Amino acid sequence: MSALESLRERLAELADLSSLGRLAAWDQRTMMPPAGAASRAQQLGALQRLMHQRATGDDIGAWLEEVEADGDLGDVDRDVVRLARRDWDRRRRIPADLAAARVKASAEGQAVWQDARARSDFALFAPALERNLALAREYSACLDDSGHPYDALLADYDYGLTAARVQAIFDPLAQALPPLVAEAAARPEALDVPLPVEAQQAAVLGVLRQLGVREERWRVDVSPHPFSLALSTSDLRVTTRYTGAGVESLLAAVHEYGHALYESQIAPELARTNLGHGTSMSVHESQSKLWENHVARHPAFAPVMAAELAAGGVAVDPEALHALFVRVRPSLIRVEADQLTYPLHIVMRFELERALVEGTLAVADLPAAWNDGMRRLLGVEVPDDARGVLQDIHWAAGSFGYFPSYALGCLIAAQMWERMESELGAQDEALRRGEVEPIRAWLGEHVHRHGRRLDTEALVERVTGGPIDAEPFLRYASAA
Amino acid sequence: MSALESLRERLAELADLSSLGRLAAWDQRTMMPPAGAASRAQQLGALQRLMHQRATGDDIGAWLEEVEADGDLGDVDRDVVRLARRDWDRRRRIPADLAAARVKASAEGQAVWQDARARSDFALFAPALERNLALAREYSACLDDSGHPYDALLADYDYGLTAARVQAIFDPLAQALPPLVAEAAARPEALDVPLPVEAQQAAVLGVLRQLGVREERWRVDVSPHPFSLALSTSDLRVTTRYTGAGVESLLAAVHEYGHALYESQIAPELARTNLGHGTSMSVHESQSKLWENHVARHPAFAPVMAAELAAGGVAVDPEALHALFVRVRPSLIRVEADQLTYPLHIVMRFELERALVEGTLAVADLPAAWNDGMRRLLGVEVPDDARGVLQDIHWAAGSFGYFPSYALGCLIAAQMWERMESELGAQDEALRRGEVEPIRAWLGEHVHRHGRRLDTEALVERVTGGPIDAEPFLRYASAA
Repeated sequence: MSALESLRERLAELADLSSLGRLAAWDQRTMMPPAGAASRAQQLGALQRLMHQRATGDDIGAWLEEVEADGDLGDVDRDVVRLARRDWDRRRRIPADLAAARVKASAEGQAVWQDARARSDFALFAPALERNLALAREYSACLDDSGHPYDALLADYDYGLTAARVQAIFDPLAQALPPLVAEAAARPEALDVPLPVEAQQAAVLGVLRQLGVREERWRVDVSPHPFSLALSTSDLRVTTRYTGAGVESLLAAVHEYGHALYESQIAPELARTNLGHGTSMSVHESQSKLWENHVARHPAFAPVMAAELAAGGVAVDPEALHALFVRVRPSLIRVEADQLTYPLHIVMRFELERALVEGTLAVADLPAAWNDGMRRLLGVEVPDDARGVLQDIHWAAGSFGYFPSYALGCLIAAQMWERMESELGAQDEALRRGEVEPIRAWLGEHVHRHGRRLDTEALVERVTGGPIDAEPFLRYASAA
Repeated sequence: MSALESLRERLAELADLSSLGRLAAWDQRTMMPPAGAASRAQQLGALQRLMHQRATGDDIGAWLEEVEADGDLGDVDRDVVRLARRDWDRRRRIPADLAAARVKASAEGQAVWQDARARSDFALFAPALERNLALAREYSACLDDSGHPYDALLADYDYGLTAARVQAIFDPLAQALPPLVAEAAARPEALDVPLPVEAQQAAVLGVLRQLGVREERWRVDVSPHPFSLALSTSDLRVTTRYTGAGVESLLAAVHEYGHALYESQIAPELARTNLGHGTSMSVHESQSKLWENHVARHPAFAPVMAAELAAGGVAVDPEALHALFVRVRPSLIRVEADQLTYPLHIVMRFELERALVEGTLAVADLPAAWNDGMRRLLGVEVPDDARGVLQDIHWAAGSFGYFPSYALGCLIAAQMWERMESELGAQDEALRRGEVEPIRAWLGEHVHRHGRRLDTEALVERVTGGPIDAEPFLRYASAA
């Protein structure tokens, strides 16, 4: 076997093992009997350790040196080798002890956080957060591509972006969005529509079917926190949840559909390579947000949604339904936030976590900074830490640099949607008929098929002709 | 880390990976969208290759040598090391090329067999069978513990048994069982009872609940071919299937419960070692057959079954239901056979496959030998090869030596049931009340907790005081 063949075989093995890990995660969240949890954690731990070992071996380094000396690689192979080099170098720089310490601190942090949140007691959580931060800084220091200590953390989720770049993108958003939120929140309040769970279930399946979901390749299940996974481009699994709240199940299902569709339309030639996945967290989020914000929340799509609810036995006026989908209300909890306030929750978290990582904000001062931020950006008063600084799991798990992708996804989605409509024409008429095939095809051609071949901002430039930009989202927010 | 710690860590890793493989197999047969099949095969292939590599490494040999020099091991560690040595030695003796050739011939054999069975054309299948046999003989020759070429094949499923020993066990069965079948088949025919699928579903869940199945640790799903898997001792998954045929769903569910219960009651100290599984195919089958033949088919349990069907909306007379459960009718197809004719299907297959492996029966003569055997043992005429020699997948898949376990399981179940009742007293009264806790506890203590620590016949001797013996099953057959 040539060095390239050996490298590709190892990458295929890692892709296959990663798929099995995703299956185990899917099962854990949808099917597994509760008492299976402890063994599942051990199984996933064994898989992770083995994958790390297989992904960081000296053999890969030797293959890479040999292959890199060969100037005559094809297009795909060149990207395979480029990304394999990047991933291997980054992983090799992290000492095993540090990696293990981060995993341990993450598990302990989450356990303490659950307790602290239940008691709304930030002081209980503070030492675990200090520990996670110290380890994150140590981790960052191992990766010498980090100009700012935050940059190397960000790179795990969105390679190529920097704290400075995210700041430059978020600044105009933080300026222009609050007044638009205030305007939208001042509209007459949309009234809740009672939607029995059975009708929601029928509508979720009906709407997903409109979007192209077929049993041959898809599963739709229920989980406490909606998510989606692709076990391959032909084995796509989305979940949603059903609550009394009504439209959440539909929005979550369409959101998760967007994630899975991305993975399903990656070029077949990238399957079982290191390129066969969505390129970054923010681009992934853009694909879910595009379907959630620009299709599910589109006024022209409301009649389709209403028709599927009617098929499920509930008559709802499409306009009343649409009003619910686009209702804007500043609130305390990120995961319950509407499409306009959501990015502001993120802007604040980015500012705070960047300051924590660089050490300009002390952990002890975090709750006050949080509450100030909520007042400034969203105009709400935080009554307690459980509904404030303790609401998210990310920092407890040692994840810093993940939050920006949630808002970047909203911005990129709006950019891509504008670009798509400028190429295909307005989609209103097609959406009214429930026709989304042109959208799917456009995304497949311009975004999905590339897999990891283009990093976040390179992809955005290629698709939209410019860098990441808040303006299209702000236009969407003005119109919504 | 000491050599023993290193060895145990590797065994734990292999146990964890094996669990993930079982999860993938379970998912494939219950949940996976059909289009996921090709990728799943690749994922499982990658896992198998990696596990083989991790299970046959030089490092294990070095650890074993060091540990074996240590005379001071505890009881469990002594068995861990003994079985690790046996497994490693056997695997190392098989050249990688031969292992790969067997996998390939198995896949090709199954593809050809499906086609040949559909056309009822044995000649189409014959070359693939020749190939599988040649490879099986080559495989057997690698394992020098084989006195008879069949013995080494048998050892993969039931270590320690030999062709001669199985023959000695089956001979009295082949003599004494046919007249008992004839007698039972001459009884007035039990009439089918119409059982709507909804009632069956409710009864399956109700009966399993009686047997101790709780959602905390168990899942019950549907699959075309019922099976069960333990992903850990606390994550137990059984399936059944629902047809118009009525009682099959209940029998299959109870059968699969028996398999899973075995795995669930293995001593916790054996978890994530090489001892943490049922010891052999025949002992595993004995645990499913014990619940199927001796509990589900027990006249005293029929009222419990009838009550669960009644709860599902169908009133059935317990005696009529029991008559259905124990109906005896010689027939063509093994998987549809009743509790008395079933072992005779197996006796014939054992005779044929042993002769094929040793070369005293030519592949070309197999169909005629099959049809003769069916006439001799079961008194039925085989109308075509699809319903004859082509009905089973085992030989197409290159599995020789697997069949005996199906009949040995029936015999061992009867032996263990007799022994249990001699210790605990007759279970009739308890079964009438649906109480099976004493049976579960007895099996846990005497059979299950040992895991792989005792091989088939050593376990049977320990549990029943004697070797495997057909007499208890023949007594069961006389009484049934």
